[in-house]
Amino acid sequence: MASPKPERKEAQAETHSAMDIAIVGGGIVGLMLTVGLLRIGVRVKVYEQARSFREIGAGIAFTSNAIRCMDLIDPSIVSALRSSGSIPTSRDPDDPNDYLRWVDGYSQRALYRINAGVSGFEGCRRDQFLESLAELIPVDGIAFQSRLVDIIQQTDLKAPVQLIFADGTTASADAVVGCDGIKSQVRRVIHGNDSPASYAHYSHTFAFRGLVPMEQAIIALGEYKAKNQHMHVGPGAHLLHYPVANNTMVNVAAFVRDTNDWPDENQIVAPATRREVQEAYRDWAPCLRDLVSLLPENLDKWALYDTWDFPAARFNKDKLCLVGDAAHASTPHHGAGACMGVEDVLCLVRLIEEVNSIVVIGKAADSKVIMLAFETFNTMRRTRTQWLVDSSRRVCDLYHLREWGDRELWTKAEVCFEEIRDRTLKIWHFDYEAMLKETTRNFREALVRLS
Amino acid sequence: MASPKPERKEAQAETHSAMDIAIVGGGIVGLMLTVGLLRIGVRVKVYEQARSFREIGAGIAFTSNAIRCMDLIDPSIVSALRSSGSIPTSRDPDDPNDYLRWVDGYSQRALYRINAGVSGFEGCRRDQFLESLAELIPVDGIAFQSRLVDIIQQTDLKAPVQLIFADGTTASADAVVGCDGIKSQVRRVIHGNDSPASYAHYSHTFAFRGLVPMEQAIIALGEYKAKNQHMHVGPGAHLLHYPVANNTMVNVAAFVRDTNDWPDENQIVAPATRREVQEAYRDWAPCLRDLVSLLPENLDKWALYDTWDFPAARFNKDKLCLVGDAAHASTPHHGAGACMGVEDVLCLVRLIEEVNSIVVIGKAADSKVIMLAFETFNTMRRTRTQWLVDSSRRVCDLYHLREWGDRELWTKAEVCFEEIRDRTLKIWHFDYEAMLKETTRNFREALVRLS
Repeated sequence: MASPKPERKEAQAETHSAMDIAIVGGGIVGLMLTVGLLRIGVRVKVYEQARSFREIGAGIAFTSNAIRCMDLIDPSIVSALRSSGSIPTSRDPDDPNDYLRWVDGYSQRALYRINAGVSGFEGCRRDQFLESLAELIPVDGIAFQSRLVDIIQQTDLKAPVQLIFADGTTASADAVVGCDGIKSQVRRVIHGNDSPASYAHYSHTFAFRGLVPMEQAIIALGEYKAKNQHMHVGPGAHLLHYPVANNTMVNVAAFVRDTNDWPDENQIVAPATRREVQEAYRDWAPCLRDLVSLLPENLDKWALYDTWDFPAARFNKDKLCLVGDAAHASTPHHGAGACMGVEDVLCLVRLIEEVNSIVVIGKAADSKVIMLAFETFNTMRRTRTQWLVDSSRRVCDLYHLREWGDRELWTKAEVCFEEIRDRTLKIWHFDYEAMLKETTRNFREALVRLS
Repeated sequence: MASPKPERKEAQAETHSAMDIAIVGGGIVGLMLTVGLLRIGVRVKVYEQARSFREIGAGIAFTSNAIRCMDLIDPSIVSALRSSGSIPTSRDPDDPNDYLRWVDGYSQRALYRINAGVSGFEGCRRDQFLESLAELIPVDGIAFQSRLVDIIQQTDLKAPVQLIFADGTTASADAVVGCDGIKSQVRRVIHGNDSPASYAHYSHTFAFRGLVPMEQAIIALGEYKAKNQHMHVGPGAHLLHYPVANNTMVNVAAFVRDTNDWPDENQIVAPATRREVQEAYRDWAPCLRDLVSLLPENLDKWALYDTWDFPAARFNKDKLCLVGDAAHASTPHHGAGACMGVEDVLCLVRLIEEVNSIVVIGKAADSKVIMLAFETFNTMRRTRTQWLVDSSRRVCDLYHLREWGDRELWTKAEVCFEEIRDRTLKIWHFDYEAMLKETTRNFREALVRLS
């Protein structure tokens, strides 16, 4: 680092690279990127605003496609996932757990299922995965209590980028990657505090979340439903439940369309009561009414924010780049937001590897080459990732069709699963090899035009 | 025929099949089905309400995928298409005509294009194709002036089905296929006069249609745009133009969202004035305002009807079956309604071939086997075809996004082309071989359960 924060010592091993990259945000995407860049010999430092890792202890699942991407970023990431209690869906082709399942929330008629394939998903606890990832990074590679407030780029783009933190300290780097999530400060630096594109906005859907003990859930839902993931759909709402904690609890997420604005954009989690959930699902099937009556009397509701209203026109500016939720925060209806972040990291590591090889063979980090890499990243990733943001909204709209409650119109709603399947398979069957090939080709072609 | 209409003579060659099928509707789908069934030796008769063929002389285009389906139905259908002035998009990989092209109707910025491939489409005049198809059918195979009013099935399903026409004559057949288009009477017989699913409904979009002489269109649009298909999109409207009549005219279809109901559902074409079009496009790019000012002072507007609001829950009932627009009328925004009809015909001909082989080897046409074929057709075709109805509405919604007019939000609208491309390729890259395999397998498995 040209100008590290004074209170921190640099013990990171010298690498052969002249380039260093600052990563803002020590979440899963930031740490995966760090591991990937360390593998290719780039000097990298993570700046995390928290005192320590304190991710919400919620579950997170990756598709087998995303896990293959992780393996290409660095096989140690897959080991970290598996060492942190990752639970693949079964390896048994007949296991019903390998399906995603949709049910009419009113009639309980089975609507559709998609076979996720053997080991189609691996779920783990987010906080455990984060800890396992952190173990792959030298201790001086992560600076905590570093809340970014601004980034200064000199008019002379060859000069290092300067990061300014809330405590008045600074740091500098050849380039900055914002992995700072849905409330990204790097996004604000790129697009300006006044631009609506600098912020995620309320999707007018929120989710009640709570846990129900398995034995009670079985009484409400029956054993098969209670022990397997099900998505119940209906007009203006949908309810997802799946077993957690070694089948001892059922996690319930009850989504509700909301015509109002969210009261406080700084507080996306608000207290709620079981009565509110019961009110929202009062017309639904008896087994679901029973299920929500088993929720704790006091629980949380989570506002869903995303970048649907005001997508970023670019993920990059000069020597700054956005990756993961910082670039394209999505509602969770595809369960694939983190998978997009993994794809992003794979793409960016490949590009930095290209930059690095140029740097190594000759001159010092050329700001133009770094900017070209970020520009290529923007071209390669913006459409697919923003498509996911849109698609997540779209499938939520389809889950909430008014036709679900109307026997006469049921046929109309049913057809939407053709679309839901197409969208799901587009996520699952991503051709990352083609992305890598195209990324490399685009970058090299642009490099030729540059010189 | 067990009981042919008395005034008509049966001169059709005797075939080895004991089964006869009545086809209601002598449009393109009805005649393709007739040709396909004649090839496999089924006795078939078409009942057409008009005095003669009098399809609207509009253009119709087929994807190369649909043309391969035609070839499997009967190669003579492809010959008929090519003998009726079919104009394939060029065979030159660099020809810009091979692209579908979308343009921002306000800024004229090029938004997206999809390469339809060499010879990706073949267009022809609908009336000429129909005439060429008719030449493949024995003269006594088509009965004109036969307006169906009802179909009677005996309680004993082994008895022939009786068709009743408006002039009081009757006919009978072992089974009836409704190819009678968007105003299908067979659909009403199946679903009942009181069911909204018996009728297509107004999509709240209409289209002004008119022709502009090429030399004038070139002054408005420039030569390149005038001579190539372009789709201009904008808030609440879109405008499609493409050259016709050997590049001497430009066909203009200007679509407009309509919040009102259509005044007369029996009259879907209404007179309109150029002033109305100018009013609808008053905020659009100058070149488009110029283009619409070149339309004739009096032109037509067409209401777009489809089966989106009330899809048919089934395409079959007993020994009746719906095919093409009669089953699933769509708005034209994918330009693929007729292609779906071709796929339908391919599927049904394969099924009747299966039925026929059973009939030939033993007993007479077994009504249960015919019903099973129609049931299999319903299973195989309903989802994809109704998906097209939905998808056509969806792409129209995307063309009409309010964001198109807003520079600040343009990025959001842009992403929709990822979805438009996916939808387009789903239509173009249909795996008809897989459909045929699955159709045969499903039918044979059901047959085993039947016996």
